[in-house]
Amino acid sequence: MAEGKYVYRFDEGSAQMRDLLGGKGANLCEMTRLGLPVPPGFIISVEAFREYYRLERRAPEGLWEQVRQNAALIEQTAGRRFGDAGDPLLLSVRSGSKFSMPGMMDTVLNLGLNDATLEGLARATSDRRFALDSYRRFIQLFSKVVLHLPASQFEEALAQARKRHRVASDAELPEAALEDVVSEFKNIVQRLSSSPFPSDPWEQLQLAVQAVFDSWNSPRAVAYRRHHSIPDDLGTAATIMMMVFGNSGWDSGTGVCFSRDPNTGERALYGEYLPNAQGEDVVSGSRTPKPIAELAREMPPIYRQLEEIAGQLERHYTDVQDIEFTVERGKLYILQTRSAKRAGAAAVKTAVDMVDEGLIDRQEALRRVPPLDLSQLLLPRFEPRSRENAVREGRLLGRGLNASPGAATGRAIFEAEAVQETAEEGDTVILVRPETSAEDVPAILKAAAVLTSRGGITSHAAVVTRGLGKPAVVGCARLHVDLPRRRMSVNSKTIREGDEISIDGFTGEVFAGHIETMTPSISGDVYLERLLAWADDFRRLRVRANADTMEEALQALAFGAEGIGLCRTEHMFFDPDRLPYVRQVLLYAREAAQLEREALDAQEAMMVTAGAAREEAQRRMEAVKERLREDERARQYRVALDQLSHFQTRDFREILRAMDGKPVVIRLLDAPLHEFLPPHDSLLEEVTALRITGRDPQALEEKERLLEVSRALREANPMLGHRGCRLGLTYPDIYEMQVRCIIGATRELRGQGLDPHSEIMIPMVMDVSELRALKANLERLVQELEKDSANAAPIHFGTMIELPRAALTAGDLAPEVEFFSFGSNDLTQMTFGFSRDDAEEKFLRFYVEKGLLRTNPFKTIDEKGMGRLIEMAVKEGRGSNPRLEIGLCGEHGGDPQSVDFCHRAGLDYVSCSPMRIPISRLAAAQAALEAGERDV
Amino acid sequence: MAEGKYVYRFDEGSAQMRDLLGGKGANLCEMTRLGLPVPPGFIISVEAFREYYRLERRAPEGLWEQVRQNAALIEQTAGRRFGDAGDPLLLSVRSGSKFSMPGMMDTVLNLGLNDATLEGLARATSDRRFALDSYRRFIQLFSKVVLHLPASQFEEALAQARKRHRVASDAELPEAALEDVVSEFKNIVQRLSSSPFPSDPWEQLQLAVQAVFDSWNSPRAVAYRRHHSIPDDLGTAATIMMMVFGNSGWDSGTGVCFSRDPNTGERALYGEYLPNAQGEDVVSGSRTPKPIAELAREMPPIYRQLEEIAGQLERHYTDVQDIEFTVERGKLYILQTRSAKRAGAAAVKTAVDMVDEGLIDRQEALRRVPPLDLSQLLLPRFEPRSRENAVREGRLLGRGLNASPGAATGRAIFEAEAVQETAEEGDTVILVRPETSAEDVPAILKAAAVLTSRGGITSHAAVVTRGLGKPAVVGCARLHVDLPRRRMSVNSKTIREGDEISIDGFTGEVFAGHIETMTPSISGDVYLERLLAWADDFRRLRVRANADTMEEALQALAFGAEGIGLCRTEHMFFDPDRLPYVRQVLLYAREAAQLEREALDAQEAMMVTAGAAREEAQRRMEAVKERLREDERARQYRVALDQLSHFQTRDFREILRAMDGKPVVIRLLDAPLHEFLPPHDSLLEEVTALRITGRDPQALEEKERLLEVSRALREANPMLGHRGCRLGLTYPDIYEMQVRCIIGATRELRGQGLDPHSEIMIPMVMDVSELRALKANLERLVQELEKDSANAAPIHFGTMIELPRAALTAGDLAPEVEFFSFGSNDLTQMTFGFSRDDAEEKFLRFYVEKGLLRTNPFKTIDEKGMGRLIEMAVKEGRGSNPRLEIGLCGEHGGDPQSVDFCHRAGLDYVSCSPMRIPISRLAAAQAALEAGERDV
Repeated sequence: MAEGKYVYRFDEGSAQMRDLLGGKGANLCEMTRLGLPVPPGFIISVEAFREYYRLERRAPEGLWEQVRQNAALIEQTAGRRFGDAGDPLLLSVRSGSKFSMPGMMDTVLNLGLNDATLEGLARATSDRRFALDSYRRFIQLFSKVVLHLPASQFEEALAQARKRHRVASDAELPEAALEDVVSEFKNIVQRLSSSPFPSDPWEQLQLAVQAVFDSWNSPRAVAYRRHHSIPDDLGTAATIMMMVFGNSGWDSGTGVCFSRDPNTGERALYGEYLPNAQGEDVVSGSRTPKPIAELAREMPPIYRQLEEIAGQLERHYTDVQDIEFTVERGKLYILQTRSAKRAGAAAVKTAVDMVDEGLIDRQEALRRVPPLDLSQLLLPRFEPRSRENAVREGRLLGRGLNASPGAATGRAIFEAEAVQETAEEGDTVILVRPETSAEDVPAILKAAAVLTSRGGITSHAAVVTRGLGKPAVVGCARLHVDLPRRRMSVNSKTIREGDEISIDGFTGEVFAGHIETMTPSISGDVYLERLLAWADDFRRLRVRANADTMEEALQALAFGAEGIGLCRTEHMFFDPDRLPYVRQVLLYAREAAQLEREALDAQEAMMVTAGAAREEAQRRMEAVKERLREDERARQYRVALDQLSHFQTRDFREILRAMDGKPVVIRLLDAPLHEFLPPHDSLLEEVTALRITGRDPQALEEKERLLEVSRALREANPMLGHRGCRLGLTYPDIYEMQVRCIIGATRELRGQGLDPHSEIMIPMVMDVSELRALKANLERLVQELEKDSANAAPIHFGTMIELPRAALTAGDLAPEVEFFSFGSNDLTQMTFGFSRDDAEEKFLRFYVEKGLLRTNPFKTIDEKGMGRLIEMAVKEGRGSNPRLEIGLCGEHGGDPQSVDFCHRAGLDYVSCSPMRIPISRLAAAQAALEAGERDV
Repeated sequence: MAEGKYVYRFDEGSAQMRDLLGGKGANLCEMTRLGLPVPPGFIISVEAFREYYRLERRAPEGLWEQVRQNAALIEQTAGRRFGDAGDPLLLSVRSGSKFSMPGMMDTVLNLGLNDATLEGLARATSDRRFALDSYRRFIQLFSKVVLHLPASQFEEALAQARKRHRVASDAELPEAALEDVVSEFKNIVQRLSSSPFPSDPWEQLQLAVQAVFDSWNSPRAVAYRRHHSIPDDLGTAATIMMMVFGNSGWDSGTGVCFSRDPNTGERALYGEYLPNAQGEDVVSGSRTPKPIAELAREMPPIYRQLEEIAGQLERHYTDVQDIEFTVERGKLYILQTRSAKRAGAAAVKTAVDMVDEGLIDRQEALRRVPPLDLSQLLLPRFEPRSRENAVREGRLLGRGLNASPGAATGRAIFEAEAVQETAEEGDTVILVRPETSAEDVPAILKAAAVLTSRGGITSHAAVVTRGLGKPAVVGCARLHVDLPRRRMSVNSKTIREGDEISIDGFTGEVFAGHIETMTPSISGDVYLERLLAWADDFRRLRVRANADTMEEALQALAFGAEGIGLCRTEHMFFDPDRLPYVRQVLLYAREAAQLEREALDAQEAMMVTAGAAREEAQRRMEAVKERLREDERARQYRVALDQLSHFQTRDFREILRAMDGKPVVIRLLDAPLHEFLPPHDSLLEEVTALRITGRDPQALEEKERLLEVSRALREANPMLGHRGCRLGLTYPDIYEMQVRCIIGATRELRGQGLDPHSEIMIPMVMDVSELRALKANLERLVQELEKDSANAAPIHFGTMIELPRAALTAGDLAPEVEFFSFGSNDLTQMTFGFSRDDAEEKFLRFYVEKGLLRTNPFKTIDEKGMGRLIEMAVKEGRGSNPRLEIGLCGEHGGDPQSVDFCHRAGLDYVSCSPMRIPISRLAAAQAALEAGERDV
């Protein structure tokens, strides 16, 4: 086989060759070509890596020969020779894949040292202690990374040396001590590996390259790639470079700098450096680095040169750079540059500034900002130093799922009633529960944040808090929440009711005690406003909000919502003022339905019999109908319905007024009825206890009645149960009441000269027959209510597409409605057969972890499966009703990747929680730009 | 507008004109053309009916003119005139649509009577009492049907006449009394309608025709059509015919006869007649009809003529006929003929006989037998007279869903333990529960039948009993089952534990007390055997059985199963001997999974941290792994797994031996785990009680532990939960154990010279990644277990397609497997968002009743929605794996309409419960014939 080219000098490559040379190597080449002061070096390509594995971990033919040739070129440039006992050149080997995998793969420094070159280094640097310390570090690192010897014996030897010399740190060890340590290290290697430490520099180099290649498949690296969805077959390159030493004296140093502030985007060098030090010293934290500004005082020419290089790199890459540098005896070397990771605020400001500076155009600016980073701009965060302190103090209790972003510090409260009290005392409350349910909503409203030990990112707690824009960490399995005792424990720590805790909804971290938070100011954030205005120019998808209250509606407007895509009416029923009426309605609605069913029985008997039997059946039916008319409880039921109707009219009036002139899609009641009852298990416990003790027979009777209702309403699988339009059809009074309220509120506002746009959405439709039956009834009602209106605008009806069958029969549904809205949460549940209340906790995390699912389908739309249903429904729905408006209102409406899919699928809008609106606006613009590129 | 032809003489129509003339009218025409003795008459067509409605219930122009012309022809033939006071012709008007709607629409007899014609009739018949009685009946019927006057006052007048004359029945009223009644009836009409009874015969006729047309839209008729899926726009014809009187003396009579016995198929006239009587007298039951055989003695020439006509009609229609006849003064008239409804046994025998007689071919014979009727041949039924007695005695308690066919009488038992006792005493048991769950399976096995007050036709009780071939009535909502008191009440009746009840799984009827049952003999039913053999010749679909035990497998074989399409392994775990081991496994598997998760946590921490934190995480991970190895409970868990493995191996051995040489598809564990625990609510009650009383701390501890497991395993929506392959992946030991058992049993039988064909089916797959992960592991296991086998046949792996996403990604799944099997029960649940445990009881019945669903999708495949998913999966699955074998193993496999769909969708086989196999064989043949017709 012909021998390939496996090795590239820095001046042979470029930034475009990331696939072949890795990100780090490609950038070193680019800088070399730009004439920047990069230490001489070369790269063993990814192709060599692949060949190495193809040959079952043998170097491909010619590789070492090419390495030697290229090393010779370094020697020429450096004026020193590798392995030269007089003045040795030392080399480093670093891994470098296309995508950065920080800390996951191996690096070997100071290659080329042995007993002979040690002396040469000592002589050349006139610093024998430095040379010995370098040798010691080299043996230690090499033994671990290349020879895979356990680290403990080396650490033990160092510890004993420190003890012997009564010093606290290795830096204080005298030269003689290091001499002993080096000798002892070599003995350890001999003992553990039964062979001496390899002293041949070339052998060292070959072993190091192989070790770097092998580290690609270390369990950590494999796990990291799985976690970050990096393909396993990408492979790594290895960069070999001349060592430069920032610890060569006070005219030396090492540091990291950003071409702009990565937290704020401020246009000034940002970073830190440490004089007379190596990178390792910065990482170990043994000395405190200085702000980069001090470099201007200490080494003005170096600072000026660095500033110039940073500017040059930024202009060249048209992006903020994160630069590693070393100064060796007054000479600046650039060791690495890459695009800088930055906080959301910095990303926005930088993108906008660079447009103003003419570096990039507006499209590129929009592409530059990861949409999810915007959430950082809008939410409280932990003050970084305060958080670091907490970590140092061992207060990190665990990590759950980052269900709803934001950070919060407050008192841990376990019971709903206590939340109220504590909040009234003016304290911030973090509600802690094993999981939450509809019952907890009032408490959640009063709490600042929520922490649960169970549930996933679409659990009740997660969905509700995201809607409210409150931080939440859920499914923190390690916490043992002991409700009866009002405390939680984790490992040996116990947090009692009222103790302070802190949670970070960005990262999922949970801390004991207080951490300072900071809330970035948004209002008048001109950068964000400009960026989003550009986004609005480019995007085609409209963005609406999921909002159930006036407060949410106003917040959504402030963030740029173009309407409300989902107003969930069931959330309006959970208020403690309203629940009694809701229960009254349910209590009777059930009986009414039973009577109704008896009437049906009788009617059926009438149909299939004749003569006397038929007449008997008819009498039975009439008797039942009579009962339905006369019952006293039927009267109470009407009163309760009436009460609810007052509440609902007010709700709708407030929201419609807030959204004046913009569409508001109101979904009729969807929740399973038993959600409005107290939790079944508690009821059962109470009833059992009351029965045994015999105390309080009145309470027993009342609870028994509730328990009976709970039993009757309970369903084996409520998600697939008696909810949505199934309720609307079987208990028609509820939907009628809601529509009356909507029209009532609409008329009232119209009377005030406003322009309300209410649209009525029917949930859980599986067949056009449901739509027809409901619409026939509700449209007649609307007409009746509006018959005296001169200027009644037609009320639009729409349907949620949230069952596979709705998508599969979209062509039938479309002619009946003005709009579709994909209820992507439910659609995901049905398509996958996942219950979102259970799946994440029980197996979904395992699935994502094991790579059985690439992403959580509740977070990002599953294009392959559910996406096909959406595409079919869009095509067939528009096919039978070309004017059909199509939106999506699940959690996915705030996920950039899903927004991209919605754009491609041809939707008209997405609807998301108010806090996500800026994200979706930007994501929609990126989707449009992306699609434009593809069209070209 | 040109005047249409609205009226057809009997000699103008034919049997082919059912659409225009209705079924009854078309057959009268056909008989007239055959020269049979039909009274003269004509038909007002369905077109006239449609025109009548188009004109908003006005007769179309020319209709009455055509009626008069045609009536004149009757007059000619009859030699009497309509309205002639001397010797009046009387007419009848009957409705008649394309499909029979017995008793639902109106008929008017004796039209043409008034005060004048009454006298003529009296003179002509020399029977004034007869004439008066006819007049009385006419006024009564006309007032009700045409004038819509309430019936009560007429009944009251008759009752008073009876009282006055001290007689028990109207038939005993003397002539003078009838004279008074007629006079009183006319007064009533005058009083109620403020006008005299219409005396003009032509007016009577027109009003009667309009009333017949109007009755098409009576609420009853509309409800009936909805119930029987008859389109509303079909419309009805009206047949007008000369009245003939079977009550004209002892040389007269009326009756009904079948050309063969509709119960047995015996080739002889079958039926009954009543001398000197009208049809009404037969229906009212005031006199007992005689068997038709007696007619041969009483009127030999009439009997011979009837026999001849019946034979002629049978040959003409090539089908068994149901004939109405009247003899008027020694002359036979045929009033109606139609294809005879018949019992399953008769349908089979008749079809086979007719082939032997050369009347029809084998294809036609196959088409003639409704597949579902076969179930009657195989199951016990109520002895009809015994059932009638029960109805008369008011013992019919209610009607539930006919969930599993067959009839049973036995003792009502409410508690599982009592079932055993009662069964051991030799008594037949009917298990009565609000609903059943997996816990009840042992009791169901011992009971003869099951009755529940909740649940639908695919509820647990229904599915299990159908599988076992035991009768069940479910969802009989009217029964109030009071478990604690071991009784049930319905209305005011109470059935206590041990009381006898009877249930009819064919009809859903529930009776108090005993009803005789009869079991038709099957073995050696040559007719059925021949018919099914023909079916096998024509069908393309193969038919397999769903069978979980050897008994079921043997039964399935006897019914012609070609293999087992679904062997559910979870049912094997419910045996009381096994449950403790199952629970032991679950108890620990959960802990193991928790530990596993902690290890994952630690691993994740290792990945995202470095330095000391990373090492801490590593230590944590190793500690967890150590615990997993050393725990004593881990040992017990292994022992329990081992025990289960013995049981399973035996199960598989038995089934595979029974099915020697035929494929057996074994589905790995699918059920949600909590199904194996005691019911959660009972546990909670027990624990609460034990806590309060403080007695028996040991029991408390044990129950608390079970409760904790129950809490942990419980899911909000178990149907969408941690089941199927999700369990197989998260708790790998269970599937491995099962595969070991399958291979073990297979090897053992192979060693005995048998030919076992086990196929392994993986349930609840939503993505190919699951299949790949499981197969990689299980195939390796199979190879390992079989490595020493010289003659190891390859084990086929397959997947259930039961989630929409599996269907949507079938193209990915197919290359990984040898077969697909549609799990149509679950697929229906997910596609519709219906929970089968809840839906039928809560709203599905309402949906079917209201016409929101045409059929129950759990019974018959929803072609429009779910069918598309099946078709996509077949197409794309075969596209990527042309050798893929495709079956269906849900409840639908035994439903003829669904079998037809499976044929059209190109499936290879269906699998159904053993009792349904003959049905599916026949349905598959009909599907093939139907498809063949379509191809022509």
